[in-house]
Amino acid sequence: MSRGLKIVTIGGGSSYTPELIEGFINYYSELPVREIWLVDIEAGKQKLEIVGNLARRMIEKAGLPIEIHLTLDRKKALEGADYVTTQLRVGQLAARALDEKIPLKHGVIGQETNGPGGLFKAFRTIPVILEIAREMEKVCPDAWLINFTNPAGMVTEAVLRHTSIKVIGLCNVPIGMERGVADLMKVDPSRVRIDFAGLNHMVYGLDVFVDGVSVKDQVIERITDPEKAITMKNIHAMGWEPEFLRALNLFPCPYHNYYYKTGDVLAQELKDAEKGETRAEVVQRLEEGLFELYQNEELATKPPQLEERGGAYYSEAAVRLIYSIYTDKRDIQAVNTINHGAIEGIPYGSAVEVSCVITKDGPKPINVGKLPIAVRGLIQQIKSFERVAIDAAISGDYDNALLAMTINPLVPSDRVAKLILDEMLEAHKSFLPQFFDKKEESLS
Amino acid sequence: MSRGLKIVTIGGGSSYTPELIEGFINYYSELPVREIWLVDIEAGKQKLEIVGNLARRMIEKAGLPIEIHLTLDRKKALEGADYVTTQLRVGQLAARALDEKIPLKHGVIGQETNGPGGLFKAFRTIPVILEIAREMEKVCPDAWLINFTNPAGMVTEAVLRHTSIKVIGLCNVPIGMERGVADLMKVDPSRVRIDFAGLNHMVYGLDVFVDGVSVKDQVIERITDPEKAITMKNIHAMGWEPEFLRALNLFPCPYHNYYYKTGDVLAQELKDAEKGETRAEVVQRLEEGLFELYQNEELATKPPQLEERGGAYYSEAAVRLIYSIYTDKRDIQAVNTINHGAIEGIPYGSAVEVSCVITKDGPKPINVGKLPIAVRGLIQQIKSFERVAIDAAISGDYDNALLAMTINPLVPSDRVAKLILDEMLEAHKSFLPQFFDKKEESLS
Amino acid sequence: MSRGLKIVTIGGGSSYTPELIEGFINYYSELPVREIWLVDIEAGKQKLEIVGNLARRMIEKAGLPIEIHLTLDRKKALEGADYVTTQLRVGQLAARALDEKIPLKHGVIGQETNGPGGLFKAFRTIPVILEIAREMEKVCPDAWLINFTNPAGMVTEAVLRHTSIKVIGLCNVPIGMERGVADLMKVDPSRVRIDFAGLNHMVYGLDVFVDGVSVKDQVIERITDPEKAITMKNIHAMGWEPEFLRALNLFPCPYHNYYYKTGDVLAQELKDAEKGETRAEVVQRLEEGLFELYQNEELATKPPQLEERGGAYYSEAAVRLIYSIYTDKRDIQAVNTINHGAIEGIPYGSAVEVSCVITKDGPKPINVGKLPIAVRGLIQQIKSFERVAIDAAISGDYDNALLAMTINPLVPSDRVAKLILDEMLEAHKSFLPQFFDKKEESLS
Amino acid sequence: MSRGLKIVTIGGGSSYTPELIEGFINYYSELPVREIWLVDIEAGKQKLEIVGNLARRMIEKAGLPIEIHLTLDRKKALEGADYVTTQLRVGQLAARALDEKIPLKHGVIGQETNGPGGLFKAFRTIPVILEIAREMEKVCPDAWLINFTNPAGMVTEAVLRHTSIKVIGLCNVPIGMERGVADLMKVDPSRVRIDFAGLNHMVYGLDVFVDGVSVKDQVIERITDPEKAITMKNIHAMGWEPEFLRALNLFPCPYHNYYYKTGDVLAQELKDAEKGETRAEVVQRLEEGLFELYQNEELATKPPQLEERGGAYYSEAAVRLIYSIYTDKRDIQAVNTINHGAIEGIPYGSAVEVSCVITKDGPKPINVGKLPIAVRGLIQQIKSFERVAIDAAISGDYDNALLAMTINPLVPSDRVAKLILDEMLEAHKSFLPQFFDKKEESLS
Repeated sequence: MSRGLKIVTIGGGSSYTPELIEGFINYYSELPVREIWLVDIEAGKQKLEIVGNLARRMIEKAGLPIEIHLTLDRKKALEGADYVTTQLRVGQLAARALDEKIPLKHGVIGQETNGPGGLFKAFRTIPVILEIAREMEKVCPDAWLINFTNPAGMVTEAVLRHTSIKVIGLCNVPIGMERGVADLMKVDPSRVRIDFAGLNHMVYGLDVFVDGVSVKDQVIERITDPEKAITMKNIHAMGWEPEFLRALNLFPCPYHNYYYKTGDVLAQELKDAEKGETRAEVVQRLEEGLFELYQNEELATKPPQLEERGGAYYSEAAVRLIYSIYTDKRDIQAVNTINHGAIEGIPYGSAVEVSCVITKDGPKPINVGKLPIAVRGLIQQIKSFERVAIDAAISGDYDNALLAMTINPLVPSDRVAKLILDEMLEAHKSFLPQFFDKKEESLS
Repeated sequence: MSRGLKIVTIGGGSSYTPELIEGFINYYSELPVREIWLVDIEAGKQKLEIVGNLARRMIEKAGLPIEIHLTLDRKKALEGADYVTTQLRVGQLAARALDEKIPLKHGVIGQETNGPGGLFKAFRTIPVILEIAREMEKVCPDAWLINFTNPAGMVTEAVLRHTSIKVIGLCNVPIGMERGVADLMKVDPSRVRIDFAGLNHMVYGLDVFVDGVSVKDQVIERITDPEKAITMKNIHAMGWEPEFLRALNLFPCPYHNYYYKTGDVLAQELKDAEKGETRAEVVQRLEEGLFELYQNEELATKPPQLEERGGAYYSEAAVRLIYSIYTDKRDIQAVNTINHGAIEGIPYGSAVEVSCVITKDGPKPINVGKLPIAVRGLIQQIKSFERVAIDAAISGDYDNALLAMTINPLVPSDRVAKLILDEMLEAHKSFLPQFFDKKEESLS
Repeated sequence: MSRGLKIVTIGGGSSYTPELIEGFINYYSELPVREIWLVDIEAGKQKLEIVGNLARRMIEKAGLPIEIHLTLDRKKALEGADYVTTQLRVGQLAARALDEKIPLKHGVIGQETNGPGGLFKAFRTIPVILEIAREMEKVCPDAWLINFTNPAGMVTEAVLRHTSIKVIGLCNVPIGMERGVADLMKVDPSRVRIDFAGLNHMVYGLDVFVDGVSVKDQVIERITDPEKAITMKNIHAMGWEPEFLRALNLFPCPYHNYYYKTGDVLAQELKDAEKGETRAEVVQRLEEGLFELYQNEELATKPPQLEERGGAYYSEAAVRLIYSIYTDKRDIQAVNTINHGAIEGIPYGSAVEVSCVITKDGPKPINVGKLPIAVRGLIQQIKSFERVAIDAAISGDYDNALLAMTINPLVPSDRVAKLILDEMLEAHKSFLPQFFDKKEESLS
Repeated sequence: MSRGLKIVTIGGGSSYTPELIEGFINYYSELPVREIWLVDIEAGKQKLEIVGNLARRMIEKAGLPIEIHLTLDRKKALEGADYVTTQLRVGQLAARALDEKIPLKHGVIGQETNGPGGLFKAFRTIPVILEIAREMEKVCPDAWLINFTNPAGMVTEAVLRHTSIKVIGLCNVPIGMERGVADLMKVDPSRVRIDFAGLNHMVYGLDVFVDGVSVKDQVIERITDPEKAITMKNIHAMGWEPEFLRALNLFPCPYHNYYYKTGDVLAQELKDAEKGETRAEVVQRLEEGLFELYQNEELATKPPQLEERGGAYYSEAAVRLIYSIYTDKRDIQAVNTINHGAIEGIPYGSAVEVSCVITKDGPKPINVGKLPIAVRGLIQQIKSFERVAIDAAISGDYDNALLAMTINPLVPSDRVAKLILDEMLEAHKSFLPQFFDKKEESLS
């Protein structure tokens, strides 16, 4: 360890990378990074070079002895890694556009981590991440895999259930909620603590504290106002019916809009789609702008425009996590990790998103016990869906895929599920060998 | 006990009563009923007399020494009762019509035991049944309460949680599924056994046996065909996507259509409503016809037309249950009873619908353990809804009522939930003192 | 099946066999047994012939077309078997004598299914039963294994966890308790039902019914009197402190003496041992007498002296179980079967002894839920012991064996545990290859 | 809060008080204590004054503006308190001597927190602590009750189950184990973290870390050596059989000697008793010496001799806990708190001793999940005992008291349990009104 840490970032050509680089620069005094390997695939080579060069300029400007390596050779990059982060997108934004548009054609929400879109992102992504994890088992079995790739909950659970790699799923929703509360309450974020529990993109704040004193009631009261809702760049804030939120008595995450305001979100999405403003389309344009900026040889810092991209606090979340593991910090962060009874009723071995003490031995969930009765059902239902979805993602079993699609609460019937499933399987065919190669096999 | 049993039927003026009388006649040799008290309220007095007189003619024709008492004095009827059955309908069919129509106006399924309709039936019914149970605590504390009143699961749970009365919730869905399998497989019903588990109107056959040998695969294969679906008079059979049902690998109940085919059922309901054929309207006409028949002084048997009414096997289910309790029969029947770990993940103290050994000491659930992962979520979600709904039904708390409505999986958003809630509260106002009297109170 | 059933009894030379034969004769009209294979090992060949010939005379006298086969070729016997029963004793009574005597030397109870003796019987037996089960996987994978071999709980769990064979552990304690209650209450046994829950030789009657009405209080009151205790031939009845039993408020099994009266039982055992009357010695003499009787060519029925042997109701229990499986009887019997949540707090996959509905698909436990708090701990402790013991029995790991011995509640310290362990390992060496061959291996 | 904190210490005349005062002095800069009320009863008045005067001299020497109040008026002391600590001993050391000696007469371990002695300490103490908690409900409902009074687990659970007061049970065993590891590993205590789980005086280190890296194997290896055992002043270190401890694979607490070395500890106790060196006798002499020292008007610091008394790190544990609550520190400490699923299998609502994050909102247990199978049973058994014991302590029910005594794993039979129970009830009669007044009542 004395030689410093080796960090590997899969999907290193992502527009998010400058966020991450900035984080490592900021934490350098306590987190001695020696080399950062940015890995991408052939199709992403050009972006990798643009981003990689920006990264080098940032490091240089900071005057730090961190080496930046750019490579398409994943295995070589992984050798001897200490921390591996993933931020890849199988099929890139074009696939995301399909995830968003096909369901909408059938009157179903199109979103990249929820509903049919989330299911297909899982189908495309899980086999790739498992391949990475199995590679890690060989060349860096003790490294931590920090997975930022969506759908982060399902991807993390797949790695937990099917490999021996130490994995943590990371999302910027919890940190965003904490910063949102800090803003609302006008206090420094370090004074805010939220008891998080749930699943990725289905996490609740069970209680909210400033300096250890609950401010949950005030937070609930304020966020019923759509102007004060705490949300993400990719989610329209719609506020909440005040009586509903009071009785729920929890701090919902932005993605709960998809479940408690399904009809309204769907209407908004249809409107956006008509205007050519699905999230994929918006992001496509943002990305183009960003990469143009990144190519500017004068640029040696993260440009402020990146914040529009949606990954707010990603740098903070990822680097803070690695830092706390490395230093055995024992501070509290919400991550996706294995459930060993932390949340009652969620099966042992599943991924949950929960406040944890971060130690060198990994995240230790703070006990939640029984979730409030009003949300227990929805969380269980999403977990049911995730389990069936993971199985289908790995086996490529059509029937299980249809089962997953049908039990997803955003899908209105087995019939519509089948329509969407068939259309999406066809559309994403080239990224879903598990569903297609097998069939051919069975024909021969 | 030597003097024979005293049976009390609340809602005795119901068109179902001849079913029940027929049952007691058939079982008389082993179930020595001495007197049957048919109880109704002032508004139902006329029907009570029509039905009561038919009951007397049936008994007379059978040549049995059973006394039929007709009364509006519930307390007197309950004194010293051995078994109390309930088949009441607060607000009668007019209220049902509202439960079905108001949600439809907002694009939501209108059904008397599911969605907003089920919620309001619970709001109207639970306080009345609790009043009966509390009366029983005083005048017949050892009697069994056999509750057939819908929503039977929530009503049963309310009695379990809030009184000391021994209660069993009874539904004709499980017996109907067994008979359906017997028909499909062309065997006598006594040779069929289904491992039932779930909630009322949300029950699954985990496995299906003929002579102890599983025939689940055959049953699943056949019921994908809408012609062979096993259903109820009040539910349109729609069949199932074969791949979905195979992957689900369970025998769903007819009410699962509302959850796995939501969109299609809604479309059908809207069509029916346009034609003036909501279920309430259909039943209204059936009832009128039945009561005309019942008035025929020549009639001394249950008329076959009653089967159209929807309560198929009700007589069989109710009387068989009382018989098995009375004789300590130790046979297997599916009923709604208290969960003490029979189904993992459902809270202790909740009502579940599950196969039980029926003894004089009550139903003893056969252990289920963990439900299959694919259905665990949906059942939990319905149970979440039921718990919040029961609390709201008792407290009359508006916020909780909105919470219940919003988390119901058939309702698309908190906003629509509020619209429906407000309209239904107003429409059913006279039957919902818990929501209104309190408010006036707080004004004074 | 039309050709009749093939029954295989491993350890067929046991003195118990006439019990079993009598059972099959009595049930023949409903349980069409075609052939019974009595299997034994070389060392038991003589006994096998004596018992086998008696069996043949019994069948002949009954005038039934059941074939009796005697063989040392276990695999041949198992081919195509429908039901396999085991009643073997690895090391025979000589090993039992050691199980009883060695612990006593160290001031610890010596008993063949509890404490150090039970542990070593498990060490000797589990590998042999697993070998049989693996043989069954090949030649009769659908047969039921009815295991009567002690320690029945641990042996059953080992088969459940490590093979695919359908196994049921059977003990005559529950049936003995039911018969004891029938005697006490002077009613026919068919009118008695006990809600059994616990582990083998650690089972409680949670409630006791006659005709479905609880008589637990009367039973508890009576059995505080040692004269009225319900016990086994091999256990001295000692009665109970009345206040203790009232507060316990359960019907303990005879083996609970070892745990709630440890000191007194130990004192009695030491006295018995001094007089040469350990159970092994008593049984040795009984067995000799029995085999002398069995050789009498005039004898063609089970001799009454067999009842002294201790296996009362064994015939009844074993044949009744096979009969109920075969006919899908759906009656209630207490057996050792897999726990899938029937008893909360006992791990899934463990063997529990619990009242079950017996079907052709196997035993279906009646749900128990949470055990009364006062006994939850002891049962968990025994289960902890059993789990560690099973692991050690299979792995032959010395450290685990010492752990099992030390956590057994009858053993006073890790130090004494080690003394007993070392002495017993040496004494039983020839039957414990898993502990010894391995060590030699690691030397080479 | 700006005026500083009010601390109340019940049992303020204890010889431990200088420990506590020293703690408050050391933490004063971050924990602004305004006044400390030392409360005692009439019988302890003299000691209270001796200790109180020493406390005043200590504060004066430290030059801090903390007021020391000495009083027998508990209610007045409690008014407006912020933190209440208890260190009382009902019946003083004379009662402890009986707890130790009476069981020994019957061949049973005599110890003040385990076995019959622990049971009677609970019987004497629980009613008094409940009285204090009920007083707090009236005059300082928001204060934290930091209970140091043994048996701390049972006392804490009684307060949790029967009052609304926020209570934390505190023990110096965990901190002692951490310091012991720090010594063994020659590192600063702040670098040691132990994952604690279990019950008070029945806690295990599930894992042991230095700087976040597990050193459990080294710790286990070393403590098999009695010279290196980590123990308490009141417990003879005996070391462990190495193979046992390796297979157990946990770090036991000193009190586990009573359960895993019962026979050896008993032998040692009998030897000590013969020499007049029971712990009560030793402590009696230590106390006399301490109070002589305390009277020395020159003394203005905690004398080093106090360490012999047994409460090592008590000051550290208690003050550190109050400090972390007050400052919302979010560090990790092991305390006795309510179980809400933190340890699976221990009932919700029970007290458990577990590593917690300490916040202003109280301790938040780090999730444990399933305990290792080998210890699950023993912990459950002790919890069974504790639950029955608490019930008996409150109700004064003789039968339940006998049940508790009998199921305690250190007691050999119901018969011996009754002998000890009867003798101890008589001996402690004046402190057990719940057992005696009631009986008289029922006679009148």
